[in-house]
Amino acid sequence: MVRAHRVVLAYSGGVDTSVCIPYLRQEWGVEEVIAFAADLGQGDELEPIRQKALRAGASQALVEDLVAPLVTEFALPAIRANGLYQGRYPLSTALARPLIARRLVKVARTLGADGVAHGCTGKGNDQVRFDLAIAALAPDLAILTPAREWGMSREDTIAYGERHGIPAPVSKSSPYSIDLNLLGRSIEAGPLEDPWREPPADVYDLTRGPEAAPDEAVVVEIGFAQGNPVSLNGQALDPVALIRQANVLAGSHGYGRIDMIEDRVVGIKSREIYETPGMLLLIRAHQELESVCLAADVMAIKRQLEQRWAELVYQGLWFGPLKQALDGFLDTTQKDVNGRVRLRLYKGSCTVIGREASHGLYAMDLATYGREDQFDHRAAAGFIYVWGLANRVWASRHP
Amino acid sequence: MVRAHRVVLAYSGGVDTSVCIPYLRQEWGVEEVIAFAADLGQGDELEPIRQKALRAGASQALVEDLVAPLVTEFALPAIRANGLYQGRYPLSTALARPLIARRLVKVARTLGADGVAHGCTGKGNDQVRFDLAIAALAPDLAILTPAREWGMSREDTIAYGERHGIPAPVSKSSPYSIDLNLLGRSIEAGPLEDPWREPPADVYDLTRGPEAAPDEAVVVEIGFAQGNPVSLNGQALDPVALIRQANVLAGSHGYGRIDMIEDRVVGIKSREIYETPGMLLLIRAHQELESVCLAADVMAIKRQLEQRWAELVYQGLWFGPLKQALDGFLDTTQKDVNGRVRLRLYKGSCTVIGREASHGLYAMDLATYGREDQFDHRAAAGFIYVWGLANRVWASRHP
Amino acid sequence: MVRAHRVVLAYSGGVDTSVCIPYLRQEWGVEEVIAFAADLGQGDELEPIRQKALRAGASQALVEDLVAPLVTEFALPAIRANGLYQGRYPLSTALARPLIARRLVKVARTLGADGVAHGCTGKGNDQVRFDLAIAALAPDLAILTPAREWGMSREDTIAYGERHGIPAPVSKSSPYSIDLNLLGRSIEAGPLEDPWREPPADVYDLTRGPEAAPDEAVVVEIGFAQGNPVSLNGQALDPVALIRQANVLAGSHGYGRIDMIEDRVVGIKSREIYETPGMLLLIRAHQELESVCLAADVMAIKRQLEQRWAELVYQGLWFGPLKQALDGFLDTTQKDVNGRVRLRLYKGSCTVIGREASHGLYAMDLATYGREDQFDHRAAAGFIYVWGLANRVWASRHP
Amino acid sequence: MVRAHRVVLAYSGGVDTSVCIPYLRQEWGVEEVIAFAADLGQGDELEPIRQKALRAGASQALVEDLVAPLVTEFALPAIRANGLYQGRYPLSTALARPLIARRLVKVARTLGADGVAHGCTGKGNDQVRFDLAIAALAPDLAILTPAREWGMSREDTIAYGERHGIPAPVSKSSPYSIDLNLLGRSIEAGPLEDPWREPPADVYDLTRGPEAAPDEAVVVEIGFAQGNPVSLNGQALDPVALIRQANVLAGSHGYGRIDMIEDRVVGIKSREIYETPGMLLLIRAHQELESVCLAADVMAIKRQLEQRWAELVYQGLWFGPLKQALDGFLDTTQKDVNGRVRLRLYKGSCTVIGREASHGLYAMDLATYGREDQFDHRAAAGFIYVWGLANRVWASRHP
Repeated sequence: MVRAHRVVLAYSGGVDTSVCIPYLRQEWGVEEVIAFAADLGQGDELEPIRQKALRAGASQALVEDLVAPLVTEFALPAIRANGLYQGRYPLSTALARPLIARRLVKVARTLGADGVAHGCTGKGNDQVRFDLAIAALAPDLAILTPAREWGMSREDTIAYGERHGIPAPVSKSSPYSIDLNLLGRSIEAGPLEDPWREPPADVYDLTRGPEAAPDEAVVVEIGFAQGNPVSLNGQALDPVALIRQANVLAGSHGYGRIDMIEDRVVGIKSREIYETPGMLLLIRAHQELESVCLAADVMAIKRQLEQRWAELVYQGLWFGPLKQALDGFLDTTQKDVNGRVRLRLYKGSCTVIGREASHGLYAMDLATYGREDQFDHRAAAGFIYVWGLANRVWASRHP
Repeated sequence: MVRAHRVVLAYSGGVDTSVCIPYLRQEWGVEEVIAFAADLGQGDELEPIRQKALRAGASQALVEDLVAPLVTEFALPAIRANGLYQGRYPLSTALARPLIARRLVKVARTLGADGVAHGCTGKGNDQVRFDLAIAALAPDLAILTPAREWGMSREDTIAYGERHGIPAPVSKSSPYSIDLNLLGRSIEAGPLEDPWREPPADVYDLTRGPEAAPDEAVVVEIGFAQGNPVSLNGQALDPVALIRQANVLAGSHGYGRIDMIEDRVVGIKSREIYETPGMLLLIRAHQELESVCLAADVMAIKRQLEQRWAELVYQGLWFGPLKQALDGFLDTTQKDVNGRVRLRLYKGSCTVIGREASHGLYAMDLATYGREDQFDHRAAAGFIYVWGLANRVWASRHP
Repeated sequence: MVRAHRVVLAYSGGVDTSVCIPYLRQEWGVEEVIAFAADLGQGDELEPIRQKALRAGASQALVEDLVAPLVTEFALPAIRANGLYQGRYPLSTALARPLIARRLVKVARTLGADGVAHGCTGKGNDQVRFDLAIAALAPDLAILTPAREWGMSREDTIAYGERHGIPAPVSKSSPYSIDLNLLGRSIEAGPLEDPWREPPADVYDLTRGPEAAPDEAVVVEIGFAQGNPVSLNGQALDPVALIRQANVLAGSHGYGRIDMIEDRVVGIKSREIYETPGMLLLIRAHQELESVCLAADVMAIKRQLEQRWAELVYQGLWFGPLKQALDGFLDTTQKDVNGRVRLRLYKGSCTVIGREASHGLYAMDLATYGREDQFDHRAAAGFIYVWGLANRVWASRHP
Repeated sequence: MVRAHRVVLAYSGGVDTSVCIPYLRQEWGVEEVIAFAADLGQGDELEPIRQKALRAGASQALVEDLVAPLVTEFALPAIRANGLYQGRYPLSTALARPLIARRLVKVARTLGADGVAHGCTGKGNDQVRFDLAIAALAPDLAILTPAREWGMSREDTIAYGERHGIPAPVSKSSPYSIDLNLLGRSIEAGPLEDPWREPPADVYDLTRGPEAAPDEAVVVEIGFAQGNPVSLNGQALDPVALIRQANVLAGSHGYGRIDMIEDRVVGIKSREIYETPGMLLLIRAHQELESVCLAADVMAIKRQLEQRWAELVYQGLWFGPLKQALDGFLDTTQKDVNGRVRLRLYKGSCTVIGREASHGLYAMDLATYGREDQFDHRAAAGFIYVWGLANRVWASRHP
């Protein structure tokens, strides 16, 4: 059965996606495979990757710079939502997937393709994110996932590639599975699969270890407008430049590593290492600014909806009605989040040392224990009487 | 009007609670004031405090060691609940209040008192916690709160005290308002009221600053049984000793400081500094162990109920039906939380480097990308089809 | 102390608000009392009420028709939010309070008043709603609440009124406390305070009892656009007319009575009777339409936020940031709620018998068990494998 | 491939499960099929069903009365949880599935079977519930689901059966798919698939239509102990008898029909009709009693957890850690739910007319507007000052 005639493949340059090209053509009868590679700030040169795709048999190979939309359309909303999956992971890889999927669909439409393909395996999160995003944007396009079905081992895959002109990797392959973009780096597999064992130093690349960080602390000031970071140390920056600088600053001071057991979409607990220095720094600053800008009841509900938002994004449901509705709540709150936060980075720790909001809700004349105190102290007794009334009645019935 | 004849006063030895003694007798006609001072691990010698109360006019002065119940009945449940108010404050002061209130009521019953008293002012959280706990336990007892009503300035209070034989403080009084017990230290007021200004170094006492911490990291291993910490570095410890050691270990490595804007019960945003090294270390370790012991759906709901639990405790509703019901949920989950966690403390940072559970839910044979993989990869396509079906229908209606 | 010089009083024409006029002037030294009475669809003639206020000593008496804003700005959002306090009460009285407060503030600004006043007592919900709405809109205006402070019994109040030219009520006063507007009727007090006793028939006025309703059922069709009811039985209607007709239709068929124990803002459980036939009919129809228009995950979160929304409105927090943020979520969902619902009203019951959405999510080709079935049945096994994986691992650890 | 040698089949006596017997043996090489049929109060005679299984080729056929555990272990917890999926469906079918699964596993263990089987198709909820319950209880047992895989149409199935000695159904088959047990009756498919069309009268069997109900109302009194219904009209009853009587009473008065669009586990919206008169009556009464027995904050959280509980049960996750933890919360609350409720049933409506709790939280002396009023009215102003403070600060920043 021919699943599709012309297919746009999400292409990374690695062995697995390279092997997808002959596999799709030889085994599944796809006539034309168009490779699409995205620049997400991972720092690879894309022209060699393009050539590699063509050599593997792609009829066309396209590369595109997606860094700006990655930041403005995906990372900024995540900062506004303090998006941390299971309270920890700032979704660096998860945020890139719906963007790539949107581009794959766009390219497929432009070139008249009837299918899209990716090289994810059957156990990770990314297959879910790609498949769901593509299906939501283009339910009519076939989704071809050879690596999920071919059942080849690593060795089989390399051998299959060699038979079709794809050279075997020259260096011994890393034991880790790695994903990288401007927002961060994800590392899993190999020795990391033992959760009792500390990650070897060689898993890290974007961040220094705390011991290797400078002996001098550095103070950073982040400015926000409507919940978006807009300046660093008083200098207005576009968001791409701001995240780049935040990555360097935090990473060089040993801040931004995550070592966690997380629950994958497919129901498996997995040990993951992340390096996301910039996102963690910006979310920490943003949370702090919210503590002066948002009312307590707003924050209490927002924390619960943030948790749901991060789950949705992690689970691949970016393009869907609940995501939209949650954004309706979140965006309303962010109009009030304006001001700046100062933080000290030092050998792996990040400490807020000051926060200031324009139109914030911190009211010195109410908070002070000094002379300027405007709080009506006599109100307290009445408040406590009413606040505790229900518990008092309950207690009187349960002596 | 005589509010009560015989009153048990929560007594700290400070000027304010000392002045309460003559004030209650002279201004409000209380016949007998019994001072009650608790040892909560704050490190004060209590016999001089007892003498001070008697000199100020108390008819009796009692001291009692409440450290053990503070830890076992209040701190351990907070660790199991990962109790962090507004995601940050481990409730060190808040947990002690219902315990003191329970003892005040017990003493009042034993000695036939018809009222209890405390020296809290009308704007803080502690008045709420005392009043609500007392009212829940003994709705018939009068609660006398002179400092909330007397309207005297600091200078007035000292002068009033001197007229009744209470010596003025010898040293210049601290600009800070401080509370201390084994679980932590709370500091507010004075220069801290400017949230943009970094706290002066002199506000801290239990913890070193990150820069002053040792240059060598230390690794700690915490063992848990049913969610309770039971060992430190492999040595079984009773919980009081364990928290004491955790305080010293974490505090000496610069871990355990909190600088936050928090929302008080009475609706005011306030800048608070806390030093709670032991509680933060133990909660961090406990959260990590839960990530291998609890299912994802349990953790998602538990995080929401933890937030509510911490609000209740912060707000003084320890003795009430919602607290009981939440504990019903939390305690059920903790049966499964058994194992140990390794953490590295270094110059203000605390990093988990290993976790191991007995009967945990991390399943190497499912998680691995290696040969032992037991996950049914073919299931993924079916799962994704169903998981995304609702979003796909929605998308087809919203082209 | 003079609390205010010129005060705008929320005036209903009853004895209590009438007595407020001389009381404010005589006892509290207010120079000028301006009475403000609103037409909220309660059906009273307002010109006699105006005259009554002037006779009681008001310097001016204003009446204003607020029916249209009550419906469009307050009732429609409540329908979109399925706003039912504690799952039952459609907030008919609660919705009117912030509207009246907004007008009081507007009048005060226009006439240069420095205070507003109302006649609520100290135990109900309306005092809270008025006070909080006024304070949010005009924190500088004094709020004068004589009835909360004067401590007069009903008899005292009448006698005080007679001394100041306010005639005693001619008929024996009702044992009930009643509030009425276009959205419904609230009844409490008197014999209703015994929750075991069935309400006497004479408490009801807007609705027939089920036994007295017609023997023939009637079918109603409600059309919605973006969550707002826009037509009745196929006829487009403005929302005021639509609610009026819905009240008559449902009320005459015995639908729309509520008899409940509710938790007041001040911590008291209270037995309340409501007659809100139109609101209940429209909310029922709206919920049903949502079941075909909204995704399951959206509905699950919306139900939780609806509960919070209703609490906020009931508790007087209409003008506040959490209400705004919740509306951000709710309004986003309502773009999709378009279609119509058919219901049968019969002797107290209201049964949905059909629902139809434009662009709804009910997909016959997926739902059917017939030949047209488009669902991929083979996907089920894969889905179930993944969906149950976490529970299966858990079970394997807990044999 | 032989999936299993000896299999226990959940057997209903219908064509589909009958055909499973030869199919498992002929097509899948199962050596021995043991049929298991449960009496769940559906009213069928089980001996003829047993004979039918043997004639179809079962090596053994077992029948068992599971009515008592269905009620005590599954229906009572659902009543305590006010378990209504999507706010409406009392889970009558969903509650029976984990019970049947538990028995299948027990029988398999006793008879040394290595697999269990059921006849569910690939699109409904019951396959999920069976599979997940079996997998949680016995992860090692094979689950065989021929009807999900055989791809035969209804006609094919009948023809296959005839070839293996299973007579074709004598009467023309119903257009509906029906499930029945003591807790209720579920009906779907056929003409019901058009959600705009009213269900034909012939879909109903347990309940009268409102028009056909008696002209005289009846009053019922339900007594509860610890949240469980224990008496009807003052007469103590065991729970099975109580549900039987409640079914007859409510059903004969036209109460207990549900017509809804619900979201199935597999992501499809489906139109379902239910008749669950007894469960709906008992849940309605239970909710009412809770309104006098539970504090407002407990009820607010309980309503959110009830929603989650019903989702879990509907989705087949009865045997799992989140269900256990939620029960920990729910059971704690139910200790306080003791008392009785009176309701009037009349032509399709069910109206609460009285409720009375032992140790309830309704406090007449606080609620009353009469002389006995014990509420401290002066407290109101203080309460409102504090309660509205955060909103007031917010408003002052957003003029």
